[in-house]
Amino acid sequence: MSQATAKVNREVQAFLQDLKGKTIDHVFFVACGGSSAIMYPSKYVFDRESKSINSDLYSANEFIQRNPVQLGEKSLVILCSHSGNTPETVKAAAFARGKGALTIAMTFKPESPLAQEAQYVAQYDWGDEALAINTNYGVLYQIVFGTLQVLENNTKFEQAIEGLDQLQAVYEKALKQEADNAKQFAKAHEKESIIYTMASGANYGVAYSYSICILMEMQWIHSHAIHAGEYFHGPFEIIDESVPFIILLGLDETRPLEERALTFSKKYGKKLTVLDAASYDFTAIDDSVKGYLAPLVLNRVLRSYADELAEARNHPLSHRRYMWKVEY
Amino acid sequence: MSQATAKVNREVQAFLQDLKGKTIDHVFFVACGGSSAIMYPSKYVFDRESKSINSDLYSANEFIQRNPVQLGEKSLVILCSHSGNTPETVKAAAFARGKGALTIAMTFKPESPLAQEAQYVAQYDWGDEALAINTNYGVLYQIVFGTLQVLENNTKFEQAIEGLDQLQAVYEKALKQEADNAKQFAKAHEKESIIYTMASGANYGVAYSYSICILMEMQWIHSHAIHAGEYFHGPFEIIDESVPFIILLGLDETRPLEERALTFSKKYGKKLTVLDAASYDFTAIDDSVKGYLAPLVLNRVLRSYADELAEARNHPLSHRRYMWKVEY
Repeated sequence: MSQATAKVNREVQAFLQDLKGKTIDHVFFVACGGSSAIMYPSKYVFDRESKSINSDLYSANEFIQRNPVQLGEKSLVILCSHSGNTPETVKAAAFARGKGALTIAMTFKPESPLAQEAQYVAQYDWGDEALAINTNYGVLYQIVFGTLQVLENNTKFEQAIEGLDQLQAVYEKALKQEADNAKQFAKAHEKESIIYTMASGANYGVAYSYSICILMEMQWIHSHAIHAGEYFHGPFEIIDESVPFIILLGLDETRPLEERALTFSKKYGKKLTVLDAASYDFTAIDDSVKGYLAPLVLNRVLRSYADELAEARNHPLSHRRYMWKVEY
Repeated sequence: MSQATAKVNREVQAFLQDLKGKTIDHVFFVACGGSSAIMYPSKYVFDRESKSINSDLYSANEFIQRNPVQLGEKSLVILCSHSGNTPETVKAAAFARGKGALTIAMTFKPESPLAQEAQYVAQYDWGDEALAINTNYGVLYQIVFGTLQVLENNTKFEQAIEGLDQLQAVYEKALKQEADNAKQFAKAHEKESIIYTMASGANYGVAYSYSICILMEMQWIHSHAIHAGEYFHGPFEIIDESVPFIILLGLDETRPLEERALTFSKKYGKKLTVLDAASYDFTAIDDSVKGYLAPLVLNRVLRSYADELAEARNHPLSHRRYMWKVEY
């Protein structure tokens, strides 16, 4: 067992062991909301790395109803639900199994219905004590880079796992560096009724998650995650000095799109919050995977921005009016 | 030549003729903004119909920078730009050709740079005089269903082309039916600063287009196209009696997602505008393609809602502050 492999989640190790010799030509990333958003960077990885495996990402009910013809015995379906209770995702696991697909579920609750429905289950850690490599993002990348190594001899597995292993230190340094900025952001935005987010490439899912889960769901602030490349083909007409934007700059190949969007926004907007992964200390991470790991750091830093915003607005992140409270 | 084939755009016919015998395993839909949005239903068609061809849809610059490994000699890249001048899309055509891919460009301007860069060009019609089958949506479906027929003997080509041929009549009846509703929508929303749109499946791109092109770009109204399945995993916390939503109901397999989103929204929201394709007269369209054609009708009807909104707000749809006016 390589040093990197030894750092991989035991359940993921067992899955990867069984994957050897199997034929997989399509990976489907299937989840809802925040659990779906963590999968966007993995689709980016597959697009850039996989010579023969196609990949698609769908919200769980869309996946079931869309019913892709190519879903079948050569498919791997990667699912995620924090509680393991999300009805759409549980149903999607059963649906995929019914089509003969190989299924692996990620969840915080290994005894949950989702864990029962999928053939493989990988539990992840959660909360302030969890190490980066063991969180949902970390475990998903273990599955993704492990799958690419097993099925295609992709060579970035070691760098990715070692990078994940170093990531907690990157988080901690970045959080310290951004602590004052997070407070300033919160103070500056406590009265705002709309905040846009923007990113591209590997980072778009982080913007999406912040928009729909943090701002809309947990703060009841209007939002929309704009794709930095699409910005100039419609959305940019909305910006002026009164409209707040959070702009993410990652380290992947689409960074020029994010930079262009920032340059324009600086000219015509005023309420800009910029998180730039290039300002964080990635020296311990191999160059070949920096772009893939940047969204995880941006996401972690943005979480501290959410904590501060919730406090400044006196609106706890756990507060809901409909979710888990009414029928839907 | 079949009756259906005779109705196909001459340039598309020539492309389909040349496509015979070629090996294509991946289709990339590449454009920006509104021209990208028209491609979302085509990705839905490929997912549901294609046994062996994978498909992806990217904003043009994202496509170039993401640089998918699988882009190559067995790829078909379908591009679109109304002016044929969109720099990102022109560059994407050159990029794809450089990878050995087969390229076909759709444009209103057949002498444009995009038309020069792509191997095949299909001109579409535009404006109030254009027949549905000859518009951007119509020509794209000719390419899509033609490609599926040529490469995979898919049997829905005749129904799709005949359906497109009947679509103008569906548009006209639906527009009459909705004329008063469009005026009421405009009056009710003339002072709104944010309007959400929502849909799923084949219709999501229509919601996206309305959000980024009509509301944000042409009316400077805040917006976000919410996926009806994702709604319950974050975004629905934003709705209350003060927040306007446009909810689309299509005829494709994901309709239950849209219906569920509507049911919830009716309970907690008040400013709802519902466009239901089931209320339009689709009797002339074959059942097998109704779901695929519904977004085209919804899009056409929504355009009349945009015209009325622009008039009520005294903000012409052609009015811009940045696009084509400043450097970006």
